[in-house]
Amino acid sequence: MTMLNNVLEQWKGIPGFDNEFFKYLEMGTYNHEKKILTMTMVVPQELCNVLSTLHGGAMATLVDVVSSIAIIASDPERMPPSVSVDLSVSYAATAPVGEKITIESTVLKIGKNLAFTDTAIYNNHNKIVCKGSHTKFIHRKAAL
Amino acid sequence: MTMLNNVLEQWKGIPGFDNEFFKYLEMGTYNHEKKILTMTMVVPQELCNVLSTLHGGAMATLVDVVSSIAIIASDPERMPPSVSVDLSVSYAATAPVGEKITIESTVLKIGKNLAFTDTAIYNNHNKIVCKGSHTKFIHRKAAL
Amino acid sequence: MTMLNNVLEQWKGIPGFDNEFFKYLEMGTYNHEKKILTMTMVVPQELCNVLSTLHGGAMATLVDVVSSIAIIASDPERMPPSVSVDLSVSYAATAPVGEKITIESTVLKIGKNLAFTDTAIYNNHNKIVCKGSHTKFIHRKAAL
Amino acid sequence: MTMLNNVLEQWKGIPGFDNEFFKYLEMGTYNHEKKILTMTMVVPQELCNVLSTLHGGAMATLVDVVSSIAIIASDPERMPPSVSVDLSVSYAATAPVGEKITIESTVLKIGKNLAFTDTAIYNNHNKIVCKGSHTKFIHRKAAL
Repeated sequence: MTMLNNVLEQWKGIPGFDNEFFKYLEMGTYNHEKKILTMTMVVPQELCNVLSTLHGGAMATLVDVVSSIAIIASDPERMPPSVSVDLSVSYAATAPVGEKITIESTVLKIGKNLAFTDTAIYNNHNKIVCKGSHTKFIHRKAAL
Repeated sequence: MTMLNNVLEQWKGIPGFDNEFFKYLEMGTYNHEKKILTMTMVVPQELCNVLSTLHGGAMATLVDVVSSIAIIASDPERMPPSVSVDLSVSYAATAPVGEKITIESTVLKIGKNLAFTDTAIYNNHNKIVCKGSHTKFIHRKAAL
Repeated sequence: MTMLNNVLEQWKGIPGFDNEFFKYLEMGTYNHEKKILTMTMVVPQELCNVLSTLHGGAMATLVDVVSSIAIIASDPERMPPSVSVDLSVSYAATAPVGEKITIESTVLKIGKNLAFTDTAIYNNHNKIVCKGSHTKFIHRKAAL
Repeated sequence: MTMLNNVLEQWKGIPGFDNEFFKYLEMGTYNHEKKILTMTMVVPQELCNVLSTLHGGAMATLVDVVSSIAIIASDPERMPPSVSVDLSVSYAATAPVGEKITIESTVLKIGKNLAFTDTAIYNNHNKIVCKGSHTKFIHRKAAL
């Protein structure tokens, strides 16, 4: 995890939309064999809607961000940059401000050009909050 | 649009994740017959990724937020609250910081329980940046 | 599983698009606690594309059909009819004709109005072929 | 359209899942400038569910098949083969057996590696039945 933590620390220093999430996210565990990354977050007011529950757009962004880190985690020294192709999220329940949620992202497959991921967000009773899929295109350098 | 603008002005006063987008969004036009709402935004650094292009999670949030307003716009005085069921986004191109983008959201159908919307984001050359779908559940009061 | 098998046997007798899949599907196991249904199929030529691999539309239909059975399986005597709201599928690999695949569908949540499911198709080496999500609306009778 | 019709006629001769749809589909129009292909179909019992309305899996397959033809139509002589990456469908209404439906597929973008499409199915009153998105990976030959 050292390499991955270094990558994250570098990212945390860069202002922008990612950082609005990184500053609340805590690294959990990474299972190399199953390619599953977990991170946790206490839902902050800043990422909530007017009902003080985690905003649907913030959930979509967590699916995006945590699965992107999971892709890097699978090979932090050599993974090329990747860009989003498709993202989809199903919203099963709400997560109120102050609740500790767990974001669990699984890399289903990393191919030559595409990476497929599957992400679930659970509340602190281990109930599903949302489920998302994120497909990314990997910018590998041409074989020169 | 007066009623809709009033609704938006009220929302803009409420701190939270919506407001991180409302403060950059400008109301465009609303076509009542076709149920199409357009809003515009100059891409701010705050919603960008490390490459200084609009973050994929921010695009997903724009699909969520603008389609939610489009649903309200179809009947701003009587539309009940709604919650997200499914959101999906396909990413076709990037939108760099400073670019003026147009978010165009169409309400495909508002049924008794569900609302279906379709949203496109265009860059300032009218090229597609992303395309999204957002399905919401409408909390109508039980017939008492 | 007796009640569920009875439901399936009835369905198998009804001509239509479902039956083009039911006739190839074999019931696997159902885990009541985790709400996971598995079914298997040997990929038939009839459901293949011109490259003799399982057609993407057939995979989408398997996600639809098997998750619908999983919803019924959670309460086969009392589950009301449900209709599709949103379906999404990510295609990670191909499954050639003659390959035995496993379709594993998990009911993530059954609420008052909506059911959320998550489905994976694996090949006979337990590698992921596709991953899908299917949200359904449940037609519960009004409380009379 | 001659080249496109020739391609379709060849495909119609190949048994398989595609052909279960091609045999009911009629070529409509193709707008080269807007990259919009329309095809029509009278909903056959064979593609219906037990309620005698067009099956959700059949709708997903129509989104897949017609958008794939639309990609080819954009350059029928030179378009390389493509494979599905992500497909998503939102179901807004039913289409009963015997109804004439129109499938309208728009190629949003064809890039170096990925093609993005958007497809709507309308009933014979021009009301939306479903809306789908289909992203494909294009197998271009390496630059030799």
